[in-house]
Amino acid sequence: MSGGSWKTAITKVEPNKLVVRGYRLDQLMGNLSFPQVIYLLIKGELPTRNVGKILDAILVSSIDHGVTPPSCQAAVTVASTGAPLNAALAAGILAINEFHGGAIEKSMQVLEEAVDLMDRERVSLQEAAERVVRDYLEQNQKIMGYGHRIHTNDPRTVRLFNLAREYGISGKYIEMSEAIRGALKKLRGKDLPINVDGAIAAVLCELNIPSELANAFFIIARIPGLVAHIYEEITRYQPMRRIDFSAVEYDGPEEREI
Amino acid sequence: MSGGSWKTAITKVEPNKLVVRGYRLDQLMGNLSFPQVIYLLIKGELPTRNVGKILDAILVSSIDHGVTPPSCQAAVTVASTGAPLNAALAAGILAINEFHGGAIEKSMQVLEEAVDLMDRERVSLQEAAERVVRDYLEQNQKIMGYGHRIHTNDPRTVRLFNLAREYGISGKYIEMSEAIRGALKKLRGKDLPINVDGAIAAVLCELNIPSELANAFFIIARIPGLVAHIYEEITRYQPMRRIDFSAVEYDGPEEREI
Amino acid sequence: MSGGSWKTAITKVEPNKLVVRGYRLDQLMGNLSFPQVIYLLIKGELPTRNVGKILDAILVSSIDHGVTPPSCQAAVTVASTGAPLNAALAAGILAINEFHGGAIEKSMQVLEEAVDLMDRERVSLQEAAERVVRDYLEQNQKIMGYGHRIHTNDPRTVRLFNLAREYGISGKYIEMSEAIRGALKKLRGKDLPINVDGAIAAVLCELNIPSELANAFFIIARIPGLVAHIYEEITRYQPMRRIDFSAVEYDGPEEREI
Amino acid sequence: MSGGSWKTAITKVEPNKLVVRGYRLDQLMGNLSFPQVIYLLIKGELPTRNVGKILDAILVSSIDHGVTPPSCQAAVTVASTGAPLNAALAAGILAINEFHGGAIEKSMQVLEEAVDLMDRERVSLQEAAERVVRDYLEQNQKIMGYGHRIHTNDPRTVRLFNLAREYGISGKYIEMSEAIRGALKKLRGKDLPINVDGAIAAVLCELNIPSELANAFFIIARIPGLVAHIYEEITRYQPMRRIDFSAVEYDGPEEREI
Repeated sequence: MSGGSWKTAITKVEPNKLVVRGYRLDQLMGNLSFPQVIYLLIKGELPTRNVGKILDAILVSSIDHGVTPPSCQAAVTVASTGAPLNAALAAGILAINEFHGGAIEKSMQVLEEAVDLMDRERVSLQEAAERVVRDYLEQNQKIMGYGHRIHTNDPRTVRLFNLAREYGISGKYIEMSEAIRGALKKLRGKDLPINVDGAIAAVLCELNIPSELANAFFIIARIPGLVAHIYEEITRYQPMRRIDFSAVEYDGPEEREI
Repeated sequence: MSGGSWKTAITKVEPNKLVVRGYRLDQLMGNLSFPQVIYLLIKGELPTRNVGKILDAILVSSIDHGVTPPSCQAAVTVASTGAPLNAALAAGILAINEFHGGAIEKSMQVLEEAVDLMDRERVSLQEAAERVVRDYLEQNQKIMGYGHRIHTNDPRTVRLFNLAREYGISGKYIEMSEAIRGALKKLRGKDLPINVDGAIAAVLCELNIPSELANAFFIIARIPGLVAHIYEEITRYQPMRRIDFSAVEYDGPEEREI
Repeated sequence: MSGGSWKTAITKVEPNKLVVRGYRLDQLMGNLSFPQVIYLLIKGELPTRNVGKILDAILVSSIDHGVTPPSCQAAVTVASTGAPLNAALAAGILAINEFHGGAIEKSMQVLEEAVDLMDRERVSLQEAAERVVRDYLEQNQKIMGYGHRIHTNDPRTVRLFNLAREYGISGKYIEMSEAIRGALKKLRGKDLPINVDGAIAAVLCELNIPSELANAFFIIARIPGLVAHIYEEITRYQPMRRIDFSAVEYDGPEEREI
Repeated sequence: MSGGSWKTAITKVEPNKLVVRGYRLDQLMGNLSFPQVIYLLIKGELPTRNVGKILDAILVSSIDHGVTPPSCQAAVTVASTGAPLNAALAAGILAINEFHGGAIEKSMQVLEEAVDLMDRERVSLQEAAERVVRDYLEQNQKIMGYGHRIHTNDPRTVRLFNLAREYGISGKYIEMSEAIRGALKKLRGKDLPINVDGAIAAVLCELNIPSELANAFFIIARIPGLVAHIYEEITRYQPMRRIDFSAVEYDGPEEREI
């Protein structure tokens, strides 16, 4: 009744040797950054140094967004009951779904659809963007990646696109992302800025990451933020306090320069 | 019945501005590596470039260990039932506990105890190590961080200690880690190599990371590995197959150089 | 920035008074069975005694299925790492998805579709069954609730349908369940028995439970089974043992009568 | 490298036969209540009808406590992000720990300690109670099971003890529970009522349930409550709404009689 032998292409474990996608793990250590090895694990090949750098920037961009995102609320609520760190983290991760974090995946799908259309039908960027936006509007579907509850001009978007250009990673997906913004303005009469989800989506498309893994990048990025909030909760507050997540004030260091 | 206002020292969220531990998130992007910002979030201050580099190496060292660790088994088992990615990851994280991943925390505690003893009672490294080891042996407690089920000479340990020296991070905790190995040999007659948990423990002690957060670093490191295994499971295999985790063969790329 | 006041129709908590769906909890205690109160919580109204009894039977039918279901594998794997009981349970629940447990919901949808068709178009049970089966076959979709990996004649199905008849709960959904079996035989040439998922699905349809909550009943039922396996693991075995879930033997009590 | 064969004493799965602790599952269906089979699974033997009834009452007593317990907050927060039902439930369960639900286990330990002392040293109930309470007070440890944030006279406690008497289950643990209340009054000058955790603890001790499984009963009981809240959240509210858990009002049915 056994399942029989099967294959994995990820890691080979032998006595005193660990090989990840063909590379010895101890050789990767010190020679490649963590984001580069994340890419290697997921895509199977080594990224360039610049791909590693843009992934570093993406992960930094999403590392935390304060206490109000549901992932933080769930993690802190669970931590407050006396849970071990990993259980509080698991609860936080369970909150990263379609409506929280999920916008990156949906935004990637729109960009892929529009770029496919452009390539397949040999139409201009603008035309592809307009046709896709029109389709979505007609079907009453939301185009994710534009506008934000809090930020009208998200500094992370600007920075990420600048870095992508600097690292030579910018291409047709980032252009398409701007073209869709234009199409939305033209067809809906509203100029919605590209939000950080939309910006990350465009860059992940440039890196040829499958959209099903968009959430993985958001989760990898956010775990350290959740760790910080869980640790603050258990070191600074009593268990089982009533927590009003909208009544928080920041009392960390004053703004400072790197 | 509201919980009233409270404080967080981690992140300030304002329209178009995100400040983490005093630094603007968009300024951190591109200027600091992800591991550096992890350190900032957890410790509250910016690390040096070299601290970021050793953290990069720690995270890379633990990024994956094949399909047999329970975290991978739990994640893949759950993925195989049709779970979304985040649920499979959460199950994997729930398997990172005292007996899987937990050795880093316990190893840090031994090192801290021994270094405290050395500093407090002004005894030599060797004497402190022997007294702590004797205490543990008398109380029939295991000293974590030495010996490994599979690896007799873990290449990750050697590499991590070499990098720590190269980056100028090596200090009394790494020395104590070797001294305890010596004491174990003398008092138990067995020469057990420092395993990767013990090596990471020593470096995290050098960085003054609280031992309660050891697990956090292991979890942050392992998530991408779990993502790769989950993605392989759902793209390569049928749902609900019987999985014999001991019957796996590696069919990834041949060994190659960076 | 507060969320403002909102409503819940489930439970009113006042000093020394707990009111669930209008009934005082202390009055429910001793007067209604747990399954009856489950129904009350979910549907908002008290069930008859017999509805409580059929729910009891459904919950008993799914309370355990040995160590091989993925929910048990995930729970036991996590328990073996030193996790607290609730974390091991959470991992088990995360394995109850489309391909494990999910057949009840899908089976309910088929039955609802067929009964709707029969009622709407005033056709016979047989015709409705055949039209729905034909649709599914044409779209290459599997009809859930028929056939089983292990059981060719599941004793739980027979028993559940007998009890449903005895309690006066049997109706058009259970009939439709048989009609679909007939249609499958006629159109696919294969006589597949109704499995326990299909039987539970038919009864839950008779009780007018929303199909989105099918999984909830399976989870409620299975938690005690998972508890028993987790407890056996931590009291009988060493942490971190290698577990081959296909190599288990039963050493409990010999078969006996109630 | 396989783990080899191993044993389970819980369930035997054969084609067309499921045997739980020696009893055929289809025979248990309709003859035993769900709480009776829960007992069977955990303890290995069939309970009396009355043990089943008191377990029914325990499970009903803890089935829900409104939206403010952290388990409900975590579950509803996660549900609001678009999570599937099982993921929201898992998050809720992860919040059931030392400070939420955990009082039952701790209360059982106090009762066991006091009854052990009484039996071992052949002292009176009162003396055993006073000695244990004094010990706890001297070590500055809280005795769980007395007093409540909201309820000064919890109707569930009264009801549960009455039912225990009626079912012939009342014994020395319930008496000890009252004796400890007396000792607390005498030694601390405060008359704290036995809360529902303390009452359940006393009854579970009478049933000889291991205290490590106290949490299991609380979790089994609370899952249906969490299901109801999750289902209300996703059917009644928009995803990602800001939820102020202290600002809820009950709009369910008016108080009514069974």
